[in-house]
Amino acid sequence: MKQLLGQARVNIENIYPNIDGGRYLIKRVVGESVEVTADIFSDGQDLAKSEIIFRKKGEYKWQISPMHAVWEDHAKGIFKPDSEGIWEFTVRAWVDRFGTWQKHLIHRLQAGQDVEAEIKYALIFLKQASKKAMPKKAKRIEHFTEKIKNELDIEQAVKILFNQELINLINKYSDKDFASEGKLFEVLVERKKALFGSWYEFFPRSTGENGKHGTFKDAEKLIPTIAEWGFDTIYLPPIHPIGKTFRKGKNGMSIALKNDVGSCWAIGSKAGGHKSVHKSLGTLDDFRNFVKISAEHDIEICLDFALQCSPDHPYIQENTQWFNWKADGTLRYAENPPHEYRDIVFFDFENPDWQNLWAELKSIVNFWIDQGVKIFRVDNPHTKPFIFWEWLISEIKKEHFDVIFLAESFTKEKQMIGLSKLGFTQSYTYFAWRNSKDELLGYMQTILNFPYREHFRPHLWANTPDVLSKYLQFGGENGFVTRLILAATLSATYGIYGGAYENLWTHGNYGGEEYEHSEKFEIKHWDWKKPNRVKQVMKIVNKIRKENEALQYTHNLRFVEIDNPNMIAYLKTYENNKLLIVVCLDNFHSQHGWLNIPLEHLGIYQHESYKIKDLVTSSEYYWNGGRNYVELHPHYLPFHIFRFE
Amino acid sequence: MKQLLGQARVNIENIYPNIDGGRYLIKRVVGESVEVTADIFSDGQDLAKSEIIFRKKGEYKWQISPMHAVWEDHAKGIFKPDSEGIWEFTVRAWVDRFGTWQKHLIHRLQAGQDVEAEIKYALIFLKQASKKAMPKKAKRIEHFTEKIKNELDIEQAVKILFNQELINLINKYSDKDFASEGKLFEVLVERKKALFGSWYEFFPRSTGENGKHGTFKDAEKLIPTIAEWGFDTIYLPPIHPIGKTFRKGKNGMSIALKNDVGSCWAIGSKAGGHKSVHKSLGTLDDFRNFVKISAEHDIEICLDFALQCSPDHPYIQENTQWFNWKADGTLRYAENPPHEYRDIVFFDFENPDWQNLWAELKSIVNFWIDQGVKIFRVDNPHTKPFIFWEWLISEIKKEHFDVIFLAESFTKEKQMIGLSKLGFTQSYTYFAWRNSKDELLGYMQTILNFPYREHFRPHLWANTPDVLSKYLQFGGENGFVTRLILAATLSATYGIYGGAYENLWTHGNYGGEEYEHSEKFEIKHWDWKKPNRVKQVMKIVNKIRKENEALQYTHNLRFVEIDNPNMIAYLKTYENNKLLIVVCLDNFHSQHGWLNIPLEHLGIYQHESYKIKDLVTSSEYYWNGGRNYVELHPHYLPFHIFRFE
Repeated sequence: MKQLLGQARVNIENIYPNIDGGRYLIKRVVGESVEVTADIFSDGQDLAKSEIIFRKKGEYKWQISPMHAVWEDHAKGIFKPDSEGIWEFTVRAWVDRFGTWQKHLIHRLQAGQDVEAEIKYALIFLKQASKKAMPKKAKRIEHFTEKIKNELDIEQAVKILFNQELINLINKYSDKDFASEGKLFEVLVERKKALFGSWYEFFPRSTGENGKHGTFKDAEKLIPTIAEWGFDTIYLPPIHPIGKTFRKGKNGMSIALKNDVGSCWAIGSKAGGHKSVHKSLGTLDDFRNFVKISAEHDIEICLDFALQCSPDHPYIQENTQWFNWKADGTLRYAENPPHEYRDIVFFDFENPDWQNLWAELKSIVNFWIDQGVKIFRVDNPHTKPFIFWEWLISEIKKEHFDVIFLAESFTKEKQMIGLSKLGFTQSYTYFAWRNSKDELLGYMQTILNFPYREHFRPHLWANTPDVLSKYLQFGGENGFVTRLILAATLSATYGIYGGAYENLWTHGNYGGEEYEHSEKFEIKHWDWKKPNRVKQVMKIVNKIRKENEALQYTHNLRFVEIDNPNMIAYLKTYENNKLLIVVCLDNFHSQHGWLNIPLEHLGIYQHESYKIKDLVTSSEYYWNGGRNYVELHPHYLPFHIFRFE
Repeated sequence: MKQLLGQARVNIENIYPNIDGGRYLIKRVVGESVEVTADIFSDGQDLAKSEIIFRKKGEYKWQISPMHAVWEDHAKGIFKPDSEGIWEFTVRAWVDRFGTWQKHLIHRLQAGQDVEAEIKYALIFLKQASKKAMPKKAKRIEHFTEKIKNELDIEQAVKILFNQELINLINKYSDKDFASEGKLFEVLVERKKALFGSWYEFFPRSTGENGKHGTFKDAEKLIPTIAEWGFDTIYLPPIHPIGKTFRKGKNGMSIALKNDVGSCWAIGSKAGGHKSVHKSLGTLDDFRNFVKISAEHDIEICLDFALQCSPDHPYIQENTQWFNWKADGTLRYAENPPHEYRDIVFFDFENPDWQNLWAELKSIVNFWIDQGVKIFRVDNPHTKPFIFWEWLISEIKKEHFDVIFLAESFTKEKQMIGLSKLGFTQSYTYFAWRNSKDELLGYMQTILNFPYREHFRPHLWANTPDVLSKYLQFGGENGFVTRLILAATLSATYGIYGGAYENLWTHGNYGGEEYEHSEKFEIKHWDWKKPNRVKQVMKIVNKIRKENEALQYTHNLRFVEIDNPNMIAYLKTYENNKLLIVVCLDNFHSQHGWLNIPLEHLGIYQHESYKIKDLVTSSEYYWNGGRNYVELHPHYLPFHIFRFE
């Protein structure tokens, strides 16, 4: 039996949120609140009161936020951690003596009992509160005490004892003696970038001039353009030496020609491995300079963390024990039968020297942190042990709390969710394959609500080097605009694989959803300058995202009814910033429909007029009531972003 | 970060059953199984296998029970603790290397790849298994190995590698290396009486002859009758001295006349308190003799544990600090405003001397354990602090594991469930007020299924001294028969407040559901001998309960469709003992209906004939198919108990 404070009489059960009973931490960013609920009940007939207590771990003093009854024995409250770090919270509850006294008094009055003695008894509550109150408040309480004492009419005295000001004073300065406290749960409170970011992915080798292999110096020249478009994060595919053995040719062919550059995910050659820079891109200094210039444009660099080796990787010679060798002395290359990936080899995480392997992999992350990188996009994390990731992320965060890990994993739900639970900051999603209204509604509601809301942060990519959806292949320019807007407004974090996206590259491979002549296997040359509508929209929407906090959070999404299956509408709200987004999902025809806006959610009365402003065109409209008409012409603009003014 | 075995690659999540993440123990009796489910998945594409590991706490060696996939990444298994005590269990899981190899082989074959090297590789699995196997089994494995080696046809070799005997052998002797283990959960495994019992409650003071106050010696004479009726537990309302101050008169009047005996729940007088015997009932020796004679008839005694004092209780003088005193120096008596119970005083559990109070209350239980009592019916436990009960029950069970606590609590769900979770063996229910078919179905399904199934054991009382339901008041003799049968077959534990019940006392008080001239406040004289149909049915149903294990468990209840709203039908099964109970809920008219028996649940084929036997009349019928006709005549017998033979 644990040590019990035997006088505590209130039970606290089912404190939420928590993940698997506290096995994992829930996640927030600074500025995001935590809504806490719990079942709370005393023995017998007594009422209970409760509050959230919370603090940054290591701090001594608890902060307090009140809880309110939602229904009998169930209370709710909210708190907002205001700085990065691990926070802890739980629920504290105690017998509400004054409230119980009031409840009983009502019963006595209803039964016609004489309550004079009860009123005298109630003065104890006032006395106790006045002792604890600040002088000014104490005086108010004493004022009530005198009034009650001098009141000869019982009914009037009762009224004073139900005065809301007095109730508040007594509750505020009540004793909370013998309070119970629930189990402590922890919150990982991260910097805002963990939830809000506009990402631009590109291959630096495609930034060269005149058909040459691009370098970091070439890529540097692109930074001002990316900044002007409003992106705040550049994600670079692996920048390390590329292996030669079994190098893949164009279109992923198993034979490479002499000039083929290979896949940059086949990491490692004689020239070095995960801590080296591919010499065709430049030097480590060049990379550091690239990071520096990006920072000057308020852009962070995200590197790819792909735990795989080309057969030429130095690790294979230096640490044979980390790999899986066949009986015939050859390496077991990566495979997902019947598919074989001869240009890469996986680490054998079951090898007896796993501790040194883990330490080395951690040192890779630290190496790049030392070069100024704080964001890592992890390639296929679900094919490596989950406890490795849990260890790695927690180890890195001990020294560099602000590091962000994005899980690139398209796999079964349990694995994707498992990675998110154990600590990955953000996750790739199936967004690219959710295109119809029903698909979007169903998918977003699934990944944003219970039980994933507390840890899963969707990163919506409109495309990736691996994914060119049918919708983009056949939707024309409007399709690119629509998917960009959806990605950028459904979630606070989104990204595009650039070059291909804004230049409307639509060639799929043989009926599949990969790119034909994929940039993964060859150098491309994009026209970064030529203006078009997608580039224009990118710039506008990123600006709107920066200016409207509602678009900087993800779980504030609320779909709005619209009576047209080719249109989708949703609210995004954060404090006083309230947006309504309407998107036309038909890329070829104009669509119109009637919205049914839940005004009560916006604090607007049913028959009140309100002004909305289209943040793209700056047009303003006066609407009245929840039912409103919208019409979208995809060839002009397939979306509205309205702000309630 | 916890110590991690870095090579463990299988995740184990959501192990069930557990209560609040292991905060409380799940409950079973010896012979009852635990069905365990968990989410289990490896990283990557590998398959996983899992098993339950379990043992009695303190034992070193784990017992093992296999788990089987229910759907992808979700497995189920069963284990059965075979002795009283606290057991612990969890799930162990590991990569299923052979299964994964088989899955990959199928993919390779489908892609038309050459698999000769793979077949050679598979021989490793056979070799490993053969090393671990007993000689005879090893020989079988070697036999398969030779067959594969000598097989020139690849297709034939593959067939051997999918032979079920070989798969079983390899699984049985596989390495389970780098296995993961889940969180440990505990099971309170109690003696069978915790779940199965036929209870008879009576007031010993009503067993006197010629209008005299009955004694334990008088009550002794009733024991053979109660035993003959088939009851195994006698519950006596409090047997302690009764207070005089504010003693209640007949019908609970607030003034008692000179000869009024008072409520036995007003415990304590100058003659003693909770450790004393009311002298009108006899001596402590007489009580011990009553316990002894009961035991000779295989009957256990249950005492009432009511934590309240008459104003005359010695505690009040000796331990003033344990009570709530008003400013005017008078005691604060029990109340539930506007109701006042002046004849009793509650302990103040918030008093600073609570530790001594707890110790004293524990010593009461120990005192009666020393007199041979192992069962306690706790009066209104929800009006005392829940942590007190948690402490008390766990303390008592440390020394006397077989003690049973029955919670008498009619209150809100959270409190009733809370008491059950913290360790009360059994609980009173709202059964008395659930009379229609819909009410019975809904209520039983609620209290027996998730999430209560793991701890809540309903004790169904057909009546109590506090409850004479309208159904009994107006249902005539058939009503008494019906409710007895329902109580005795819906749950393994049931009871009647005797004398009143089998003698069909139907007088309610002023339209309420309490007894008029309640035995709580006066001595009654019952005719224990006079035969009637209720007494006959009591005897028969208790005999059937003893002979049919299916009626000795509670959570094996499964309702059966019957197309008549005045009839209810259900299956109770335990291993090969399979019963079908049909009850007519209409006390006045014959009812008939068609059953739709789920034969697959009984292991009977759709077009197979089967024999059923009516255990009351011994009639036998041959039925065929799930649809069968039944007809019940309440004035003859309003129920069937059929056994599938």
